[in-house]
Amino acid sequence: MPDPSPQTMQVLEFLNGFQDELCGQVESLDGKATFHEDGWDRPEGGGGRSRVMTGGALFEKAGVNFSHVTGNQLPPSATAHRPELTGVSFVATGISLVFHPHNPYVPTTHMNVRYFEAQPEDEGDPIWWFGGGFDLTPYYPFLEDAVSWHQAAQQATGDHYPAFKKWCDEYFFLKHRNETRGVGGVFFDDYNADGFEDSFGLMRSVAEAFYPAYAEIAGRRREIEFGEAQREFQLLRRGRYVEFNLVYDRGTLFGLQSGGRTESILMSLPSLVRWEYDWQPEPGTPEAELYADFLKPRDWLGLEGGA
Amino acid sequence: MPDPSPQTMQVLEFLNGFQDELCGQVESLDGKATFHEDGWDRPEGGGGRSRVMTGGALFEKAGVNFSHVTGNQLPPSATAHRPELTGVSFVATGISLVFHPHNPYVPTTHMNVRYFEAQPEDEGDPIWWFGGGFDLTPYYPFLEDAVSWHQAAQQATGDHYPAFKKWCDEYFFLKHRNETRGVGGVFFDDYNADGFEDSFGLMRSVAEAFYPAYAEIAGRRREIEFGEAQREFQLLRRGRYVEFNLVYDRGTLFGLQSGGRTESILMSLPSLVRWEYDWQPEPGTPEAELYADFLKPRDWLGLEGGA
Repeated sequence: MPDPSPQTMQVLEFLNGFQDELCGQVESLDGKATFHEDGWDRPEGGGGRSRVMTGGALFEKAGVNFSHVTGNQLPPSATAHRPELTGVSFVATGISLVFHPHNPYVPTTHMNVRYFEAQPEDEGDPIWWFGGGFDLTPYYPFLEDAVSWHQAAQQATGDHYPAFKKWCDEYFFLKHRNETRGVGGVFFDDYNADGFEDSFGLMRSVAEAFYPAYAEIAGRRREIEFGEAQREFQLLRRGRYVEFNLVYDRGTLFGLQSGGRTESILMSLPSLVRWEYDWQPEPGTPEAELYADFLKPRDWLGLEGGA
Repeated sequence: MPDPSPQTMQVLEFLNGFQDELCGQVESLDGKATFHEDGWDRPEGGGGRSRVMTGGALFEKAGVNFSHVTGNQLPPSATAHRPELTGVSFVATGISLVFHPHNPYVPTTHMNVRYFEAQPEDEGDPIWWFGGGFDLTPYYPFLEDAVSWHQAAQQATGDHYPAFKKWCDEYFFLKHRNETRGVGGVFFDDYNADGFEDSFGLMRSVAEAFYPAYAEIAGRRREIEFGEAQREFQLLRRGRYVEFNLVYDRGTLFGLQSGGRTESILMSLPSLVRWEYDWQPEPGTPEAELYADFLKPRDWLGLEGGA
C-alpha cells in the first residue's frame, strides 16, 4: 500500500487521540473496571486497537474499537450508494463503540465515526467520504432521556439534524419486527458535501457530542433499583440488538466481509441474551409503553410543530 | 393462487402427518413438557403451524415448524442455484425443527425437509425440487455420537451420503470463525434427479431417520451430571448458533425475506445465550477438544480409507 494521504493522516491523528480521551472518560464514569486493549493486524493490510471493559460498576460490557483497514477490494457493504467503487482499492478508518450497561434503566448506546478513501482505477484523485452517528437503545421509556439525547444530536449536526435523524430511524430499523432499534439519534454516510475540512469537522462534532449526552442519561438512571423482571426484559430486548447487528448492520457485515478481526467486530454483542418464543408485554406496563411509544420514528424535539 | 398441484398435495399430506407423529415422539422423549401450537396465515398466501415446547425435562426449547407458503415473487435466498427463477410465482412447504436441550452433554440439533414448486412465465410445467437434511451441534465431544449420527445419515441417503455430507459441512460453516456449526450430517437442495416419486422418497427417508438417530444420542447423554462450567460453555457455544442462523442461514433469510412469521422463524434461536469477548478454551480440556477435533469437516465413518 502507498503511504496514507495527508487527509487520512489527519483523520488518524484525531481518532487515536479521541479513543484515548473517550476511554479515560468511560473508565472514570464506570468507576470500577478498566479497558483491556488488544492490538491486531489484518493480513491484507491495516489493523486496529480494540478496547473492551467487562464487569464494571456501570457497564456489563463496553467496547471501543479503532480500526484502520486498507485493501484492494472495497466490499459491497461499504458501497451501497456507490456501486461503481466495488472492488477498488480503499482505506477505511474509524471508531466504533457499544456500551451495554448492567442496570436495565440505563440505555445501551452505539457511536461510530468513519472515513473512507477509495482509489478508482485510471483516475487521479481519490474519492473520499465521512460517515458516523450515534443512537440510543433504552430498555425503559423515559421521555426526558430521548429528548436530551436528540437535543445533543441536533447541536452536533445543526442544519443536518432533520435529515440525519430520519436516516438514523431508517437505518436502525428491524424490518422483521417492524420496530426501530431504539430511539435513534443521528446517522450519516457518504458525506463530502462541505469539502474536506468542514466534512471532517462534522464528523468530529458528532464524535465529541456523544460522551456528554450519554453520561448525562446514565447519571440520571444508574442508581434506580431494579429486580428480576427488569433484568429479564433487558435480556429479551438485547436479543433484538443481536438480531439487528447480525442481520442488518452494514458495519458488522463490512467487518466480517473485509476480513476484520471477528472478536473486535462482534464485541458489539451483549454478554447475556435471552430469546423467548412470542413474548409480549402486559398492556399498561412500562415495557408495553416502550413498544407503543418509543420504538418508532418520533419527532422528539417537536420540530414539526405540535407536541 | 391456483389449487395446489397433485405433487404438492402429496407432500403436504406427508408433512402434516409427520409433524404430528414427530411431536408425539418428542413429547414422549421429554417426558414433562408438551408443545404449544400457533397457527398463522401469511397475507401474501399460505401459512403454517408452529409448535414450541419450553421448560421441558430434556428440552429447554424445542420447536417444530410446518409452513406452506405461496407467492408471486420467489425470493433470491431460495434460488441461489437457480437465479433464472428469481421473482416467479412459487409454492414452498416444509418442516423445520430445532431442539435446544438443557444438559450441555446433549447436542443441539436441526432438521429440515422442504419442497418447492416454481412456475416460470410462459412455460407449461412447473419446476420443482426437494431439499433437506439434519445436522448435530454437540457442546461436548463424543466420537460415538458423531459416528452413530453419521451412520444414520448414511443409511437414510445411501449413495448420496458422501456428497450430501460434504454439502452439510460446507453449508453449516461459520466463515468468520473458521469452524463448522457442529459435526454436520447431511444437507441437500435443488434435488429432482430421480424423478418425483424417488426424490420424494429421499426426502421422506431423511425425515424419518432423524428422530431415532437423535433419541439414541440424547438417551446416552441426558443423565450425565453437569455444573456451572459446562452450562457456561453451552451458553457461549449457543452464541455461535445464533451467529450462524442470523448471518448465514438461507432458511432463516428466506423466511424473513418472504414475509414469514418472525416468531416461527426465530424460534430456532436458543433461550439463553452468552457472548464473551475473545473467550478461548483451556488447552487439554474437553472444550478445547471440541474445537480441535470436532468443529471441522471430518470423515466420521472412515469411508476414505485409513482411520
